[in-house]
Amino acid sequence: MTPITAQAIAALDGERLWADLHELAQFGARDDGGVARLTLDDNDIQARLWLAEQARELGGDMQVDPLGNVFVHLPGSAPDLPPITTGSHLDSQPTGGKYDGAYGVLAGMAALRAIRETGIQPRHSLEVVSWTNEEGVRFAPGTSGSACFAGVRSEAETRALTDAEGITFGEALDTCLARLDDAGVERRPLGTPMQAFIEMHIEQGPILERRGASTGIVTGIQGVSWFECEVRGTANHAGTTPRAARQDALEGACALATALRNVACDDADRLRFTIGRFQVFPGSVNTIPERVLFTIDLRHPDASTLGEFEARFQALAVQEWAGCTATLTPLSRIDPVTFPTGATHAIAEAAGELGQCAPRLVSGAFHDAIHLAGHCPTGMIFIPCQGGISHHPSECINAHDATAGARLLTATLCRLACSP
Amino acid sequence: MTPITAQAIAALDGERLWADLHELAQFGARDDGGVARLTLDDNDIQARLWLAEQARELGGDMQVDPLGNVFVHLPGSAPDLPPITTGSHLDSQPTGGKYDGAYGVLAGMAALRAIRETGIQPRHSLEVVSWTNEEGVRFAPGTSGSACFAGVRSEAETRALTDAEGITFGEALDTCLARLDDAGVERRPLGTPMQAFIEMHIEQGPILERRGASTGIVTGIQGVSWFECEVRGTANHAGTTPRAARQDALEGACALATALRNVACDDADRLRFTIGRFQVFPGSVNTIPERVLFTIDLRHPDASTLGEFEARFQALAVQEWAGCTATLTPLSRIDPVTFPTGATHAIAEAAGELGQCAPRLVSGAFHDAIHLAGHCPTGMIFIPCQGGISHHPSECINAHDATAGARLLTATLCRLACSP
Repeated sequence: MTPITAQAIAALDGERLWADLHELAQFGARDDGGVARLTLDDNDIQARLWLAEQARELGGDMQVDPLGNVFVHLPGSAPDLPPITTGSHLDSQPTGGKYDGAYGVLAGMAALRAIRETGIQPRHSLEVVSWTNEEGVRFAPGTSGSACFAGVRSEAETRALTDAEGITFGEALDTCLARLDDAGVERRPLGTPMQAFIEMHIEQGPILERRGASTGIVTGIQGVSWFECEVRGTANHAGTTPRAARQDALEGACALATALRNVACDDADRLRFTIGRFQVFPGSVNTIPERVLFTIDLRHPDASTLGEFEARFQALAVQEWAGCTATLTPLSRIDPVTFPTGATHAIAEAAGELGQCAPRLVSGAFHDAIHLAGHCPTGMIFIPCQGGISHHPSECINAHDATAGARLLTATLCRLACSP
Repeated sequence: MTPITAQAIAALDGERLWADLHELAQFGARDDGGVARLTLDDNDIQARLWLAEQARELGGDMQVDPLGNVFVHLPGSAPDLPPITTGSHLDSQPTGGKYDGAYGVLAGMAALRAIRETGIQPRHSLEVVSWTNEEGVRFAPGTSGSACFAGVRSEAETRALTDAEGITFGEALDTCLARLDDAGVERRPLGTPMQAFIEMHIEQGPILERRGASTGIVTGIQGVSWFECEVRGTANHAGTTPRAARQDALEGACALATALRNVACDDADRLRFTIGRFQVFPGSVNTIPERVLFTIDLRHPDASTLGEFEARFQALAVQEWAGCTATLTPLSRIDPVTFPTGATHAIAEAAGELGQCAPRLVSGAFHDAIHLAGHCPTGMIFIPCQGGISHHPSECINAHDATAGARLLTATLCRLACSP
């Protein structure tokens, strides 16, 4: 173990990290213990401003790019070299937990603080980033900040996204940028070079907990396809329209949803099929539904398997469902990613130094890292979450794992930042 | 035919009625030609103020009771006798048509104008009422105004109903009453005596159109049960939770809804089963649904059949659905009603005088008349609507039927108002 790694690991303050997690969770805190910090809402902006204070305290500065992605910067001894970047996101689900995204940002801050404490300046600068709109709840699809940063989507198409109230992403973003300007946060461009990106996250699945591991090395991310399905029937009076004369969009949508669910069954239980949003119009007790809109979230680690199920879904959608017609529109598609061996190897070496077993696993959830993988060598570290439960107020991690994960991140950053 | 009937029928102005229907439809007009005039919203209040102007022009006055029910009053020669009342409601579905409810109020106004034109004053006063919140969309259940007027529900429980934004019925009502006070509309109590109540309405079903009849005599109203069903599962991450570990509330709700729909099948196709409102929480693309709330609207002309299906539904709800639990809560229950022969007979005699065939039928939709039937002798008249379509912007009637219906109402009111 190099001196900087040994000293940084010794300096890492797990209690401070734990306190920071619970302080940050106040922005958008729900009565049930969860967090609702929706993209670019006032809580999400407050969380950025809070992070800017943390950056000042660290002795670094914070910058913001045109997508609202914020970067806490700690300069290296060779400032012309591209930085080693870590981080995740600060936005949450509407009934989200305290750790999804937030843990990755704050573990990064803990690592930078520990490295600064050593008094040794690594060659590469170090950065903690929070990517805008990872969750894709208020504005769909998600991972907006990282996708635009990496050039996968355009800034213009992202700014045009609208929320349920008709507010555009661009309008919400400009409000946020103005607040950051007022707080003295500097602007920086999109797509700046990075030497490596290491994202730290809670697993949001059951694997590490079952294996009794405090950390895990993520070798890749399964692919994900999002669809929107519209089922169209005819609205009519609930009391007077005979069954034989109905074209009930809800009856059609339930039948189609059930058929899709039955198709989306693989023996290995590796396919993930979810209908998360399901809206019925006009939504009146005594009116036969005219229209149903629902989403599909489909995931698999293998691109060809994903494509095969997409085709089977389209074949179902063109059929008639309880006298109704349906259309299935692709919303977004992200191919599975395998992280490069270099980044994965650096994490594995650091885990070895720390004596952590850190099993390898594929991420079931997608993450900003999926886009960064096309921008620079990228890796991910997971810590377990209780019962694999996430996207829920009861999402829970323990302080021991949180510290273990931050140590592994710190050792990995030291290793990468001191390399040529 | 008595002189007053003959003169009133001659004076009845079908063109004015048609023009009034389209003028009223401006309050809450939708771009698609429909109407969205939700209970006690600004459009619904404006419609009441417009009716007050119509009352002044008629030479009558308008009064309002504590539920916001408004009454246009034309005094009879024996003012101590209880009035003959007609009318319906001015509120609509969110994607409603121009005629549901509105036709009954405006046909009543046309009849009162025609009778006043004769210069002959009947013994009984005549009244046109518009009952508050028939539709039950913004505040459920519906028929609030007539139910409270007839003592079927309490004013207090009705005032406590809340809309989706948390506004109580009482708050919305007080705003409306203050606007009517400002316009000089007098207050009157609930539950005032009536000699008879005759409600005029569009059929909202296909029977009269199929029989080629311009009017129909309603002998009763089928019973209706409303339920709310809650299905509870566990929210979790869409990408990481294996199928075997899911308790997906939407999967459970689709399965239960399908089972309920399959049970609600009678060979005669007289049972009406509708799930009109269906809400999925938290409603995020990449979160497994935790909770689904849906409504059931169940109708049948026979009380014992209705009760039998209610029991079968409860037996289904206690089962497990895709690992989720469900509860079925009764929201409201209105027994089938058969109108008294006296009122039905008066309408039939009037139809005979006018040479209208006016077939008899049972109402598939419920109406305010269902509550008035417990308060005074009550009857109903229907006119056909195109394709039986209602609760939809394309709801359509023709001017010929509208006039024929107003004539039958006029002749019926003359007959009743001149009786001892």
